[in-house]
Amino acid sequence: MVLSPQHEHLLDRLAEVAVRVGVNIAHGQQLLITAPLDAVPLVRRITEHAYKAGASLVTPFYADDVATLARFRHAADDTLDTAADWLQDGMANAYRKGAARMAITGANPVLLANEQAERVSRVGRAASRAGRPAMELITRFAINWNIVAFATPAWAQQVFPDLSVDAAVSRLWDAIFQASRVMVNDPVAEWEAHNAHLRKRAAWLNERRFAALHFSGPDTDLTVGLADGHAWAGGAEPAGNGIICNPNIPTEEVFTTPHARKVSGTVRATKPLFHQGTLIDDIAVRFEDGRITEAHARTGQDVLERILDTDDGARRLGEVALVPASSPISRSGILFRNTLFDENAASHIALGQSYAKCMLDTDNLTEAHLAQQGANTSFIHIDWMIGSSKIDVDAVNHDGTREPLMRQGEWSNQP
Amino acid sequence: MVLSPQHEHLLDRLAEVAVRVGVNIAHGQQLLITAPLDAVPLVRRITEHAYKAGASLVTPFYADDVATLARFRHAADDTLDTAADWLQDGMANAYRKGAARMAITGANPVLLANEQAERVSRVGRAASRAGRPAMELITRFAINWNIVAFATPAWAQQVFPDLSVDAAVSRLWDAIFQASRVMVNDPVAEWEAHNAHLRKRAAWLNERRFAALHFSGPDTDLTVGLADGHAWAGGAEPAGNGIICNPNIPTEEVFTTPHARKVSGTVRATKPLFHQGTLIDDIAVRFEDGRITEAHARTGQDVLERILDTDDGARRLGEVALVPASSPISRSGILFRNTLFDENAASHIALGQSYAKCMLDTDNLTEAHLAQQGANTSFIHIDWMIGSSKIDVDAVNHDGTREPLMRQGEWSNQP
Ligand SMILES: [Zn+2]
Ligand SMILES: [Zn+2]
Ligand SMILES: [Zn+2]
Ligand SMILES: [Zn+2]
Repeated sequence: MVLSPQHEHLLDRLAEVAVRVGVNIAHGQQLLITAPLDAVPLVRRITEHAYKAGASLVTPFYADDVATLARFRHAADDTLDTAADWLQDGMANAYRKGAARMAITGANPVLLANEQAERVSRVGRAASRAGRPAMELITRFAINWNIVAFATPAWAQQVFPDLSVDAAVSRLWDAIFQASRVMVNDPVAEWEAHNAHLRKRAAWLNERRFAALHFSGPDTDLTVGLADGHAWAGGAEPAGNGIICNPNIPTEEVFTTPHARKVSGTVRATKPLFHQGTLIDDIAVRFEDGRITEAHARTGQDVLERILDTDDGARRLGEVALVPASSPISRSGILFRNTLFDENAASHIALGQSYAKCMLDTDNLTEAHLAQQGANTSFIHIDWMIGSSKIDVDAVNHDGTREPLMRQGEWSNQP
Repeated sequence: MVLSPQHEHLLDRLAEVAVRVGVNIAHGQQLLITAPLDAVPLVRRITEHAYKAGASLVTPFYADDVATLARFRHAADDTLDTAADWLQDGMANAYRKGAARMAITGANPVLLANEQAERVSRVGRAASRAGRPAMELITRFAINWNIVAFATPAWAQQVFPDLSVDAAVSRLWDAIFQASRVMVNDPVAEWEAHNAHLRKRAAWLNERRFAALHFSGPDTDLTVGLADGHAWAGGAEPAGNGIICNPNIPTEEVFTTPHARKVSGTVRATKPLFHQGTLIDDIAVRFEDGRITEAHARTGQDVLERILDTDDGARRLGEVALVPASSPISRSGILFRNTLFDENAASHIALGQSYAKCMLDTDNLTEAHLAQQGANTSFIHIDWMIGSSKIDVDAVNHDGTREPLMRQGEWSNQP
């Protein structure tokens, strides 16, 4: 796989944006990178930009699809509940001591589609459990972090199955560079403007302090109560360590904390969900008092059920996010089969853990207090697309009155 | 770089030998692998064999020469004393909880030859310090571990500078497969016979309990006192966790603990030393009462001095090893520029940390007691070749009498 000179140039820009805008590495900070093996060229460019920006040490961890499959095919059944807890603990220690985190996404979205659901679920659960200390630091935004994408051949072929591998990779790169806003003269300035735009929308929503959102459309009639003391976030924000960063590149969403016990009604997914190498398609669920009481999927029903059975919080929401159907990623018309992109093409909800930064005054509130206000706790956080140009969203005020928030997927007002 | 089908087959055998003979992975054991990025094909085969043999989880860590150089070229001066202590601590925790360790060697032996010695030394020292807890478990042989080699293009070109890259890699693979004893019908049986041979030699030396070894030859007149309660080792041995493993593939040496305060005389290296990406050539040193009091090198004098200044133990010996000049690696006539191979082509000494398994009764002795008996402690352990067909070795008995041990590099007796 050889990139064109133009793509090489854009890859370097993407690396620079990931380092300067995404993670915004501080002088003397360590940087941990997780990446698919294919992403070596991007990891190298990120590494160089990170050292130039003052990083003290860059440590990459590569995931190899071939090695992952070897485990599912050859490992003894009694060994599958093992995870690298010593590594996850080490990473959590690094973050506590001041390191930043970069994750490069781009793995084959259906790598494990042909493996036994039982084995996939056990491995995934062990990994989630081991990753809990590190994930806790991420979800409460204690440190600066960033996710950015690399167009691996396996991923590109899933997105463009009718093209040759080379053509698919090239098209996927075009889409990634476009969505990541690096195809402009000054990507850093472009990101400043984009962040200001998202910040303005979040500020307006924070000012209005709605009680709930109501989603309606085909097979969807869902009321999502918002947590007491919820806070809307979007774009760049200061992490707990004081560093302003953009956790996701791209990002188009404003998002907040739903009330874990005040979600009711029915909703149908508007895009398939690709989770840990498996596909869950055409999800339809019913919520009662915040809890999923019925769940169906045309494909991957068994995987979905295992996810919901992870823990009590896995059946409740930890995030609701609004994304206009006119977002650049949505307009591309591409189903990326990757959450980083697909969640930024449509309004969505997430099962599981809520984000501390999406609650007011979290420094002074106990976990119990936050839970009482509606925050959710779980080993998982799985985003799940429910928006489209066929979906309307109303805002519900505390007095029960309603006002249009989005119509046919577009914002009803300009803040 | 494409391997021939024959080389692919031998690569798979090497992986199998590394898993079954080298680390001898136990059912349910985790395996940590460190490797150069180029070694992905071997890591994948080792991973598959490890899972087939019962490994619960295989976790690779890849080192990337490009990223390493990026740090030396771009990182700020005030960040170079940083190391991945969180990762080294995590690895040490993994070993304490029962994981095995596999290291794949094959990095460019002169990667850092053009970098500033001061920067190289600071980075190396920080890495050694951070790696201390894990290295301590390795040097006292608490866990099963193994080092095996991969012929990277950068290494092959250093070994065969007159060949094309492809030809150099192919020749280096031939040499690795030969030295690693996988070019036979049944490599596992071959290794059993080889281990029995080394065990017999070590048993004979342990029975004789010599007081010292005396090396003589061109520019060499060196007496290496042996530690009280020294134990000779060689080939496969049981690690502290009870698993019998072969730490080095290849291995041709029998080795033991010198007395840290009873080494005297002069010695000249018989091969250049490649240490952390730099070359130290034509080393000549004088020992007095176990301590190096004079040290010269034609190339890399500054690096050598920095090594000796690491700590007090860095100027004293932690290992003395005997290898006949007729060992297959020696007979190949190749200077591998890699310690794993070159130390198995010649008798050698090592600066720094001694091996606990090379002392008797270590379970019942305190660190202080072992030190009193002559064991050495240091952040470093650097092997250094002093044997050749021009070197004679005498054994010195406690009554001062001498007997020939090696003449012109060959054993004087068959045990
Ligand atoms: Zn979201
Ligand atoms: Zn989310
Ligand atoms: Zn040795
Ligand atoms: Zn050694």
